[in-house]
Amino acid sequence: MTPWTWHGGGITAARRHFGGDDWLDLSTGINPVPWPGVDTLHFDWQALPAPEDLRALEAVAAAYFGVDPQFVCAVPGTEIGLRLIGQSLNGVRTAHVAPSYRTHGEMVAGSIATQASRSDAAEALILANPNNPDGRLVDTERLLAQDRPWLLVDEAFADPDPDCSVAAQVADRSGLIVFRSFGKFFGLAGVRLGFVLARPEILADLRAVLGAWPLSAAALAIGRAAYQDHAWIEQTRTRLWRQAAALDAVLEDCGFSAIGACPLFRLITVDDGHALFERLARRAILTRPFAEQPQWLRFGLPADTAGLERLRDALRG
Amino acid sequence: MTPWTWHGGGITAARRHFGGDDWLDLSTGINPVPWPGVDTLHFDWQALPAPEDLRALEAVAAAYFGVDPQFVCAVPGTEIGLRLIGQSLNGVRTAHVAPSYRTHGEMVAGSIATQASRSDAAEALILANPNNPDGRLVDTERLLAQDRPWLLVDEAFADPDPDCSVAAQVADRSGLIVFRSFGKFFGLAGVRLGFVLARPEILADLRAVLGAWPLSAAALAIGRAAYQDHAWIEQTRTRLWRQAAALDAVLEDCGFSAIGACPLFRLITVDDGHALFERLARRAILTRPFAEQPQWLRFGLPADTAGLERLRDALRG
Repeated sequence: MTPWTWHGGGITAARRHFGGDDWLDLSTGINPVPWPGVDTLHFDWQALPAPEDLRALEAVAAAYFGVDPQFVCAVPGTEIGLRLIGQSLNGVRTAHVAPSYRTHGEMVAGSIATQASRSDAAEALILANPNNPDGRLVDTERLLAQDRPWLLVDEAFADPDPDCSVAAQVADRSGLIVFRSFGKFFGLAGVRLGFVLARPEILADLRAVLGAWPLSAAALAIGRAAYQDHAWIEQTRTRLWRQAAALDAVLEDCGFSAIGACPLFRLITVDDGHALFERLARRAILTRPFAEQPQWLRFGLPADTAGLERLRDALRG
Repeated sequence: MTPWTWHGGGITAARRHFGGDDWLDLSTGINPVPWPGVDTLHFDWQALPAPEDLRALEAVAAAYFGVDPQFVCAVPGTEIGLRLIGQSLNGVRTAHVAPSYRTHGEMVAGSIATQASRSDAAEALILANPNNPDGRLVDTERLLAQDRPWLLVDEAFADPDPDCSVAAQVADRSGLIVFRSFGKFFGLAGVRLGFVLARPEILADLRAVLGAWPLSAAALAIGRAAYQDHAWIEQTRTRLWRQAAALDAVLEDCGFSAIGACPLFRLITVDDGHALFERLARRAILTRPFAEQPQWLRFGLPADTAGLERLRDALRG
């Protein structure tokens, strides 16, 4: 079970273990219908990326997040951003809401797992909103009202519902740090692009570690074009909610009830999630089981109706 | 002078300041004839890069460096690698050989500038070999014989002459850390790919900060293919030395004497390097001046004979 509970995307391991070629990968929370503009872009692989291009990307992304660019720092994947900020909090009494994204518990040494609703004495709190894998939304007003020096909000899955974002609050709250991901909503996780949103003095320390060329020519060009493609962004938000509703209906048809407020993945609770994972894997459908919550199984969105019907057949069969 | 003394590659600023469209960029140490295979590769931008692909790249690069893969960690650009290792040396009494690459002096707080030949009491020494911008080679045997806990060698420009590399020694010297760059020799700086070579326990800490997906799909695919293209690597080594000799001959013809053991750039000493920089810039040729060594001017390689002749005309005119 190890390669599949560790993180989604273990399709190579699945192929090796279960056989089969034509796998339907529902193991991630990545939009299966990516932003389509990549092939129209030219990447200057030869030159070192110009600092102006990095600033231009941050400006475009900042407009999308609804903040001033001075509060935005691009990073080569949110994962590195989370870990670098975690390092800078070394020694701060920290709690992370769990279960959630595994890295949240590894960012700051000695961080204690907690629950969103429980009050604790931590000086720093790390959580995802919406949460992964259960898609739970927190009450951001209550969260921001807490008197806590540091609040770290991973909004990797916030793009389908921008109203849940606290990005705009970084200007007013000195200890608020927000993380945004490019790859999930835009369906291009291989680009490695993320953003840390915080007060400029926090970002100055982060930039000092990243240096002047943190992003590839491709990340700069793709991010800049995609965040400006307002029509695609709007259509995609609508499509994701529609596709999630269709997935929920199939799950419901088969006797399962999906939970969560994020359309990029759906979570069900069953008697034996690992058995269901195995049953689907033998039909070459990869889902996401969880080592410590064996009753859970997470489904990413099928890209099309054919994928959805294939899932329905497998769940029934 | 600021945008050009800070780092090579300020072609946008040069265009704005001096006018002109058809610039010859000799301001960097990047091979102007890049590895040609990029267009034949397919990049999977959609999926998160598989951990197997990262390990495969590190294995191919390790073979090229002449070390076991357990001593190699890929990073998204050497710049980040230098700065992350620098952070981990916080509190260590450090010296950096100067003048050299600016980042070496910023990696560890309180680092003292020193000269390669001078003995000092630092516990950690950072230097480049060959050095940039003067192309000086250090005597690596004498360097390794020093009884110093930490020795950091930036081999960003070592590829044309692999004999100067101490990469193979990381297996035997616990405090030796070697940095290698992909972009300069392969002429693809926009890919953002570098490597830190050190003992596994040092790399484990580095990997803990980088997370599982430090590289883009493009960096993984390009690096893996390019480091295996032994024929191109051999031809390029020969070509770079030949082109550097041709550049030296042009400089000599015009009354300048180039120094250094690295064919990716040549350094000359003149009465007023900034005046010569300006004179060339008015002919749309960008070179690399230095704020604190105004008598220096560095030239990257022209890509072809036409560029070389254009430089000759400008130096004479």
